[in-house]
Amino acid sequence: MTYCVGLKLEAGLVMLSDTRTNAGVDNISRFSKMFTWEVPGERAICLTCGGNLSVTQAVTTAIDTAIRRAEEGEAIETVLNADSLYRVAEIVGNHMRDVQSTFRGAISEQGATEGASILVAGQRRGGRSRLFMVYSAGNFIEATDDTPYLQIGEHKYGKPILDRVITPQTRLSKALKAVYVSMDSTLRSNLSVGMPLDLAVIRTGEYRLAVRRRIETDDEEFGRISQLWSEALQGAFQSLPDISLAKTD
Amino acid sequence: MTYCVGLKLEAGLVMLSDTRTNAGVDNISRFSKMFTWEVPGERAICLTCGGNLSVTQAVTTAIDTAIRRAEEGEAIETVLNADSLYRVAEIVGNHMRDVQSTFRGAISEQGATEGASILVAGQRRGGRSRLFMVYSAGNFIEATDDTPYLQIGEHKYGKPILDRVITPQTRLSKALKAVYVSMDSTLRSNLSVGMPLDLAVIRTGEYRLAVRRRIETDDEEFGRISQLWSEALQGAFQSLPDISLAKTD
Repeated sequence: MTYCVGLKLEAGLVMLSDTRTNAGVDNISRFSKMFTWEVPGERAICLTCGGNLSVTQAVTTAIDTAIRRAEEGEAIETVLNADSLYRVAEIVGNHMRDVQSTFRGAISEQGATEGASILVAGQRRGGRSRLFMVYSAGNFIEATDDTPYLQIGEHKYGKPILDRVITPQTRLSKALKAVYVSMDSTLRSNLSVGMPLDLAVIRTGEYRLAVRRRIETDDEEFGRISQLWSEALQGAFQSLPDISLAKTD
Repeated sequence: MTYCVGLKLEAGLVMLSDTRTNAGVDNISRFSKMFTWEVPGERAICLTCGGNLSVTQAVTTAIDTAIRRAEEGEAIETVLNADSLYRVAEIVGNHMRDVQSTFRGAISEQGATEGASILVAGQRRGGRSRLFMVYSAGNFIEATDDTPYLQIGEHKYGKPILDRVITPQTRLSKALKAVYVSMDSTLRSNLSVGMPLDLAVIRTGEYRLAVRRRIETDDEEFGRISQLWSEALQGAFQSLPDISLAKTD
């Protein structure tokens, strides 16, 4: 499976994704689900992908192919020259729709699922930072102040902590802690979500990736948060008053 | 939807269930999903049900009908006279299979889902306390020391706390706290699980229901645990060190 989470905060965009894919429980592989493009000083874009891997790889390949053709002088619109982040989401959605219309029937005939979804985060000079979720049909939604985060894949285990602590005003250092805890809860409960992780941060007003790094299995900081969170949860539970059976009799 | 959890501990059996059913989000009702039978001093049995309501109601009705016929002198086996809890689970499974074979085709033709599952907990004089989960096909599994709890319905939100704190040696007062927190997490995250709740406890070596009560929406004790848990979680999260972006650059 997959777990990817994206936050759209006043301070910036935070994206975190796992790397485990599986075709059945006996066929597990590692693929990065995060793809980034930047024109430093002009724009930075980050995609994270879930669902059918052949579909999302076809989408990211189509994005790359268009960029290469534009670089070679062709006058085509790409995620790097589109005049709004909304258009970037539309471009991703159009690629998604093209890929789906090519393969959906055949994939589904094989009994496999062709469903896929992609988080699209980015910021360009002259625009505000935006975060979208593109569905299999190519349609999409945008994160807002009411719901400043979007998730794809195994969203349930990591959702409660986001609901409790994330607001548009959350600082980036606290937001990183929250997505670490959200991912840690998911990793513990769903074996089909796995390390290493990919992390990207785009600060508001910066048109580049402030952070783009791989968090390996032995990452000290992630391990420390995981360990401390486990202890803090145990402590929180211990701090609750026991319930007397007599009272409930 | 539904959330029911059952614990099999050395100290006894704990069962907690919600009461919300829905046929679509615009058709929400309240039905108890917990059914208990006792012959004080001889045996106590508790069922909690999830899935298609017409199926589980047909199963509990069949159980009641058999008991009434036995009381009227008919020589039939019932959950109250079966000579083991394993047989009780088989009887529930047999009723499930009968109901499914009658309705499965027709329900599924209507585009509805006939799936259902039932937790069966109980203890009889001369036997040990046992906890089973009966599936739609009438087959079942039993809770063991390795996995001393079983869940039906929306199991994800309430699972992490059980994994972290429940062992066969957990005291009942702590176990009640854990199922309250497990249910509270589920109620917060899934609107199709709702108050009031039904709680039952059977202590090891007692052949009666030590606790059998409705937890109403305004229940003070449940409300206090819910509030304190929310505060304790916030505190636990605050206690984690923030993550510096510089370090991850």
